[in-house]
Amino acid sequence: MNQPSISSPSARGPADHDIRNQIVAAANEHFSQYGYGKTTVSDLAKAIGFSKAYIYKFFDSKQAIGNAICANCLAEIVAAVEQAINVETLSPTERFRRLVKTLIATGASLFFNDRKLYDIAAFSASERWPSSQVYDTRIKQFILQIVREGREIGEFERKTPLDETVDAIHLALRPFVNPLLLQHNLDCVEEAPALTSNLILRSLMP
Amino acid sequence: MNQPSISSPSARGPADHDIRNQIVAAANEHFSQYGYGKTTVSDLAKAIGFSKAYIYKFFDSKQAIGNAICANCLAEIVAAVEQAINVETLSPTERFRRLVKTLIATGASLFFNDRKLYDIAAFSASERWPSSQVYDTRIKQFILQIVREGREIGEFERKTPLDETVDAIHLALRPFVNPLLLQHNLDCVEEAPALTSNLILRSLMP
Repeated sequence: MNQPSISSPSARGPADHDIRNQIVAAANEHFSQYGYGKTTVSDLAKAIGFSKAYIYKFFDSKQAIGNAICANCLAEIVAAVEQAINVETLSPTERFRRLVKTLIATGASLFFNDRKLYDIAAFSASERWPSSQVYDTRIKQFILQIVREGREIGEFERKTPLDETVDAIHLALRPFVNPLLLQHNLDCVEEAPALTSNLILRSLMP
Repeated sequence: MNQPSISSPSARGPADHDIRNQIVAAANEHFSQYGYGKTTVSDLAKAIGFSKAYIYKFFDSKQAIGNAICANCLAEIVAAVEQAINVETLSPTERFRRLVKTLIATGASLFFNDRKLYDIAAFSASERWPSSQVYDTRIKQFILQIVREGREIGEFERKTPLDETVDAIHLALRPFVNPLLLQHNLDCVEEAPALTSNLILRSLMP
């Protein structure tokens, strides 16, 4: 099943929510140690001290648990980006530079500091889990927001259809957004933020 | 050994050259069927009908044979690019579009039509074999040639240092040049040539 549902119908209410979080936290720790690919729900149940059936009351599959972990992790990257770019005084150009820099820095840091979690993110990207789709959509919204603002105040060109501009930038940032690509691109994370931002910003000049 | 030498010192002269080609051709066929990773030089020797020692007279290692295969394969992509862009009447803009289109099309076609050969190219990229370095340098030369020509005739801007422009474009094309990245980027090979070319060409506008 490539599209795990986020929760099974039986998991509702604040108490259930706590148990879900407890399972996710325990699974996160377990995966961090043994890897996502090699762990089964049975292993997980044993490690947490719950029955397998009990875990299945809250999650349809291992993928659904992985998806929840991944969603938390990607939400942190989104929060870091939001914090970096949502500063009143910044120009769209500066906002864009910060977007690229933060995306590359947080992605690379995840790879180097929490490799097993990174691997779950790579699974998520390769199998297009909801967490990875939500993340991708969120990044695209950031790009749209900055490009639109830059066009409104005359900092960016307006001749190219907005959709095309946003799609092209989104594609150009993909090697740094998608963990499957980023892992083969880590040798250029030093020079990439400036080179890539400058190129894209030149393409946006009026 | 990450840097296989192309030939061992004992392999010289036209007859040796023929035998080298014979080994490379047979290895190519063998790898195409069984994969590069799983094949040993012993397997190869048995399949070709040469002794292992005889093969080692011509190649230092399996990697050196893989490198020779890869060099042939990447040389074909380079030849396709050359043929596409070296047309007298083309403007630098049109030349650049053809460069991007041909790179993406030949790379994707290699992946879909000769997957095992693609995997050798991926090995080559991941371990930075000479064949992959030569290829990368060649692509960068194409970019330099086009950008320089476009600057000379006033079609492209000249404010950005030439090195920076070339490095940035080279980096932007990496997801389509490097087989490790391309394999995770194949879902966008339809829209990528136009989106990517247009964005880069906008960045080159005077």
